Amino acid sequence: MEELQVVGQRIPKRDALDKVTGRARYIQDMKLPGMLYGKILYSKYPHATIVRIDTSKAEKLPGVRAVLTGEQLPPVKFGFYKDNTPLKAGKVRSYRDEVAAVAAVDPLTAQEALDLIEVTYSPLPTVFDPEEALQEGAPLIHEAHKSNLLKLPWKLICGDVEEARKASDFVAQDRYQVTWVTHCCLGTSGCIADFDLRQNLTMYSNTQIPSLAQKDYLEFLKALGLPDSRVRIIQTFIGGAFGSKLDTYAYEYIAILLARAARKPVKILFDRKEEFQATSTRQPAIIDIAQGCTKEGRLTFRDMTMILDNGAYTSWGATTPSVMMMPISSLYKVPNIRYIAKCVYTNNTYSQAMRGYGNPQATFAIESQLDVLAGQAGIDPYEFRLINGNTPGENTPQGFKITSCGHRDCLEAVARELDWQGKRGKQKNRGVGIASLIHVGGGARVYKSDGCGTMIKMDDYGRVDVFTGASEIGQGSETVIAQIVAEELGLGIEAVNIINNDTDVCPWDVGVHASRTTFVAGNSARGAARKVKDQILEIAAKEMEANPADLVLKDRKVFVKGSPDRSLSLEKVLRKAHYSPQGTMIMGDYFYDPLNDNLDREFKGNMSMAYAYGAHGVEVEVDPETGKVKILNYVAAHDVGRAINPLLLEGQVYGGITMGAGYALSEQLILHKGEVMNPNFRDYKMLTAKDKVPIKAIVVETDDPAGPFGAKGIGEPGCVPTAPAIANAVFDAVGVRIRDLPITPEKIVAALKQKKQEA
Amino acid sequence: MEELQVVGQRIPKRDALDKVTGRARYIQDMKLPGMLYGKILYSKYPHATIVRIDTSKAEKLPGVRAVLTGEQLPPVKFGFYKDNTPLKAGKVRSYRDEVAAVAAVDPLTAQEALDLIEVTYSPLPTVFDPEEALQEGAPLIHEAHKSNLLKLPWKLICGDVEEARKASDFVAQDRYQVTWVTHCCLGTSGCIADFDLRQNLTMYSNTQIPSLAQKDYLEFLKALGLPDSRVRIIQTFIGGAFGSKLDTYAYEYIAILLARAARKPVKILFDRKEEFQATSTRQPAIIDIAQGCTKEGRLTFRDMTMILDNGAYTSWGATTPSVMMMPISSLYKVPNIRYIAKCVYTNNTYSQAMRGYGNPQATFAIESQLDVLAGQAGIDPYEFRLINGNTPGENTPQGFKITSCGHRDCLEAVARELDWQGKRGKQKNRGVGIASLIHVGGGARVYKSDGCGTMIKMDDYGRVDVFTGASEIGQGSETVIAQIVAEELGLGIEAVNIINNDTDVCPWDVGVHASRTTFVAGNSARGAARKVKDQILEIAAKEMEANPADLVLKDRKVFVKGSPDRSLSLEKVLRKAHYSPQGTMIMGDYFYDPLNDNLDREFKGNMSMAYAYGAHGVEVEVDPETGKVKILNYVAAHDVGRAINPLLLEGQVYGGITMGAGYALSEQLILHKGEVMNPNFRDYKMLTAKDKVPIKAIVVETDDPAGPFGAKGIGEPGCVPTAPAIANAVFDAVGVRIRDLPITPEKIVAALKQKKQEA
Repeated sequence: MEELQVVGQRIPKRDALDKVTGRARYIQDMKLPGMLYGKILYSKYPHATIVRIDTSKAEKLPGVRAVLTGEQLPPVKFGFYKDNTPLKAGKVRSYRDEVAAVAAVDPLTAQEALDLIEVTYSPLPTVFDPEEALQEGAPLIHEAHKSNLLKLPWKLICGDVEEARKASDFVAQDRYQVTWVTHCCLGTSGCIADFDLRQNLTMYSNTQIPSLAQKDYLEFLKALGLPDSRVRIIQTFIGGAFGSKLDTYAYEYIAILLARAARKPVKILFDRKEEFQATSTRQPAIIDIAQGCTKEGRLTFRDMTMILDNGAYTSWGATTPSVMMMPISSLYKVPNIRYIAKCVYTNNTYSQAMRGYGNPQATFAIESQLDVLAGQAGIDPYEFRLINGNTPGENTPQGFKITSCGHRDCLEAVARELDWQGKRGKQKNRGVGIASLIHVGGGARVYKSDGCGTMIKMDDYGRVDVFTGASEIGQGSETVIAQIVAEELGLGIEAVNIINNDTDVCPWDVGVHASRTTFVAGNSARGAARKVKDQILEIAAKEMEANPADLVLKDRKVFVKGSPDRSLSLEKVLRKAHYSPQGTMIMGDYFYDPLNDNLDREFKGNMSMAYAYGAHGVEVEVDPETGKVKILNYVAAHDVGRAINPLLLEGQVYGGITMGAGYALSEQLILHKGEVMNPNFRDYKMLTAKDKVPIKAIVVETDDPAGPFGAKGIGEPGCVPTAPAIANAVFDAVGVRIRDLPITPEKIVAALKQKKQEA
Repeated sequence: MEELQVVGQRIPKRDALDKVTGRARYIQDMKLPGMLYGKILYSKYPHATIVRIDTSKAEKLPGVRAVLTGEQLPPVKFGFYKDNTPLKAGKVRSYRDEVAAVAAVDPLTAQEALDLIEVTYSPLPTVFDPEEALQEGAPLIHEAHKSNLLKLPWKLICGDVEEARKASDFVAQDRYQVTWVTHCCLGTSGCIADFDLRQNLTMYSNTQIPSLAQKDYLEFLKALGLPDSRVRIIQTFIGGAFGSKLDTYAYEYIAILLARAARKPVKILFDRKEEFQATSTRQPAIIDIAQGCTKEGRLTFRDMTMILDNGAYTSWGATTPSVMMMPISSLYKVPNIRYIAKCVYTNNTYSQAMRGYGNPQATFAIESQLDVLAGQAGIDPYEFRLINGNTPGENTPQGFKITSCGHRDCLEAVARELDWQGKRGKQKNRGVGIASLIHVGGGARVYKSDGCGTMIKMDDYGRVDVFTGASEIGQGSETVIAQIVAEELGLGIEAVNIINNDTDVCPWDVGVHASRTTFVAGNSARGAARKVKDQILEIAAKEMEANPADLVLKDRKVFVKGSPDRSLSLEKVLRKAHYSPQGTMIMGDYFYDPLNDNLDREFKGNMSMAYAYGAHGVEVEVDPETGKVKILNYVAAHDVGRAINPLLLEGQVYGGITMGAGYALSEQLILHKGEVMNPNFRDYKMLTAKDKVPIKAIVVETDDPAGPFGAKGIGEPGCVPTAPAIANAVFDAVGVRIRDLPITPEKIVAALKQKKQEA
């Protein structure tokens, strides 16, 4: 691989200093002159007709500036399926439904006003189980849709599963289940809607999709009769974003409506309870899976059907099957694939993107069952995986073109580091487990564009301002892009200023999802930097009477390749260009959009320019009395193409695994008849500092041909194979397989008891 | 002239709504978290040695966070002549000298701390008159300079003045004098210096020269040992800027030093008294002038010498002779020119750029004396001016290439509108006067670059964000640039968003001076818009199977020239480009730098790409008892090339004339032995609403070949010929000529008395 100066360095996150010293201003910290506080009244029933809303008392409360209900609003729909409205008129479909909203001079007055709003409901029959919701005669969540089954045709067929099943020597078949978990961002959801006097909207927000949110709001304003209004999204410092901020939500539209009504900026900020109750979760799923193999351990088919609880409304959660198809079709070499998924309306909360976007659910089932199948075939699970491991140059059944691929290297590294051979099946109450992952690592064309724009301008000293579409949401994009630009322009990183998180000044970008930022925004930044470099070399070439193609820009100098002595300082070149009549200054822009495919009608195509592979291994100790699982050692090997910044990369891996371990062992948003029973950090058990998983992160570099300096994405992979690796280790430790997450002590104790009874 | 849709419209200033409703945030309104308030202690003597400064009491005052004196600072100089320091060490040279500074938690505590600083001075001999300051043995302001005469070689020689004088039929010779006037910005000077934790400086400021101020601060930080620090200038809404903000000042460096010392943001905001005392003024000048003509009234020569009171330090005021040369050499056709200027240090306040930049001073002398000379020759002053008027295609003695020129049209329009023939010399105590002007109208290369950059990005709907180097300082650049971009791209003006006044996001620009913004930034914006348009037409051409050169972009549609029916909507073109694999979005940048000259060593060259001409005429009534002058009618005709926005153009003319009329009749910053005696609006007599001059503004369009859509600059011209036009009208009314400004009632009464005695 090419020798680099800034790329590859362990450079701390640029925003770290501001964050640890309290200088960073989150949406929580922001206050605009004259700003009002908005609050939302939620439904008291999971399914009911709204008979009457009386807001008269609330309106009379001193300090109240606006009170809104759904009846007063134009019938504007939003969301992926256009089945949601900012405030519900006619009926409510879940406890999360927004029934009324107020804006007042302070939050307490707003709360008091909510308490004065009188709503009369007439309860309707409910359904909370997606399988029941599919039955004839089940209560309809959206009458107009005539069925609770969403008309989304999730179906992938490759080869002939039935034939392959018949031809298999071994077949495993069972059911797995995953439940609601939520994002637990330390910074709760919030926004400030602010109209100027020309009716242009500025939205301060912690969205992950500024360009798409801008579009949503533009359409909303158009529907409100403001077709010429402009929308500016300013992303404040973001206190965690793992997918919940990948859509626009009722609370944002409500803030806009309140700001319009009150003619003042309006802030809506979720409290922690609201964050648990009204933020979209990861999708719960019921997964039926069958896989087969030959005597030699070669996988023959994979057959999966899934039922997803969609909740009462539709966000991107309903589209996660498109990503689930990825591990289903392309994790290990599997010639025959069948996958069918159903998204079903219920009176529960609705789901959304969350780190991994369906991949952790699918991979949990696949990788858990692979151990079962390996057991049937009498093959060591690690060996079984190596036999079927993915390799460079592969075209997978779904149509993915695998270029760089370090899958087997990752498996081997994990087995070695974990002492697989020494430990597997050889310890009492201790066990090791392994699981792999595939994820998109080179963008994912889920929208019409997967692009990102960059603009660069350079001053007379060689300092650059880089305008990137990429949003810094805590993942470190700012630092990574600065490194890429510095590397390309032969500058130190301190010379690079990143301008981001503001749609007025930043070019378009589809959003922070699909682990795409380093790859897509990185390529975009590198492209813009190259255009800038070309201009510099062109000017220098004239001065030096050389061919631009022979020149190198490095260490703030331009010199002829191989002759660093014959050089011109960058500053001299810049001033020469600038300081003469009809002078010029260096600016450049670039829009990078990968040459990847939108999946076709059969859900086939090369959705990403690169795929990230990895393998996780874990050693656990299980207390057979209490069922408590302790992680003794965790090894994560990731094929990242190239590590632009190993420090930040490891941070992504640590964070992903910690999230994955919570998913595996303890996290669960408990819904009882549609109501969240544990909307707080005491009862919702996410891992905290004291639960720190001892992680060893191994970087496997494969120098991806399409990645910026060879890099691939790493934002999501860390949380993908954690649950099955742990489930497999638990099985190795105590011989019970838990098929529904989380793997709580209660479930282990119950399974051990049943195992004993069966023995 | 080309028919246009948005250019030429009377569109109100874009920032007007925010300003009249109080939404606009001036530096006065700004407060950063943790911000401290800085205050400056000024000298108690106009010239003295600082014997001792005791800050111990101030340091002990609760709430004080930093106290600084000059002795503690590294010896960093600033200013045009590098003769100034942020805080003075060793000695003070004027009452305006900064001796110490404090930062405290509130302004009152800061003021209290100042009062606790004990300074012991030892007074030195003083000099306040520049002619005295030039004499042998005068006290030296800067000992190191060995003389009070600045070593600035202002001298312009064209032809042979001595010979021409001999050959003249008539010669007039006399002395004119102009005194200090000041800017009277309603928004006083102020800034906030804010360092981040990487020692990067953000300066909130109402500067007119963000890019050059950035450079000054970068050099300052380097001298403080911070070579890698970045500097960002954010120009807040600006409450008036007429040149006083065209340099960096001690108070700004002091804010930076206090912010460094206190590790907090520090705001320094002048109060009104400080604004009068410590803001740089227009240059006072003593002007000796002689002009001659033939019997036929043709001008033969112009011979001028000037002494400028430079005050104790040097800002751009010392360079105003470079602009004075413009009317001296090129207003009317004058074959032989001699001009010598001396800038002299005194213990007075120091001067700076102010609207017109020396031109009003020079034009006052020239145009007053032209009436005298016309009188000697027995020619009507208007006819006299027509005879000598400038014409297109002229190359003036200094080397200006006059392209578009409406000088005579302006004279004729004024004479017609004023009923010159009917009134001149025919009224008792009423009189008419006329005067002309030339000013740069196409940039002015006073710095190494006269350029301005623009970047444009377009969204999927055809809305554009325009990043301009041009600063909106109240003059309306935002609106004018939006019109130019809208026109070029066939958009409505509401589709154009202007991003300005922030060095991080805006390209470089030399600053708001020389009436250059519409011309230079306008050409830059048009250039960038053209690049954007080319991209759009290229894409559309492929779709339409047409030649891009045959396509027109208008009314948000692309169509073949002459066939508006065969069209493609702009939105379709944009989405086609964006929404496909390897898609693109429209971005473009352009740096426009005129092909004008830096003046050579003989001060010759074509300093601007275009010259703005104009003529003003005024009718006054003079009360012979009180000497009071009343303006009955004011006509201003300006050759503007093309009016981009007549409404804003007229605003510039009205504002300029009001400032010029104050200069002519009432304004004077009174200095007594270096001390400002009238630092308030009660004693400093600027014109107010009740003194409204009845102005008729006439626009003469000459379609300048180099201007954006034919436009030339108009920011300064309005105030240039006002004083001589009024002086000439006063002479016509009551037969006395006042040769030193302002033309106060006292001076008129005294002159009438003397005239009566002489009669």
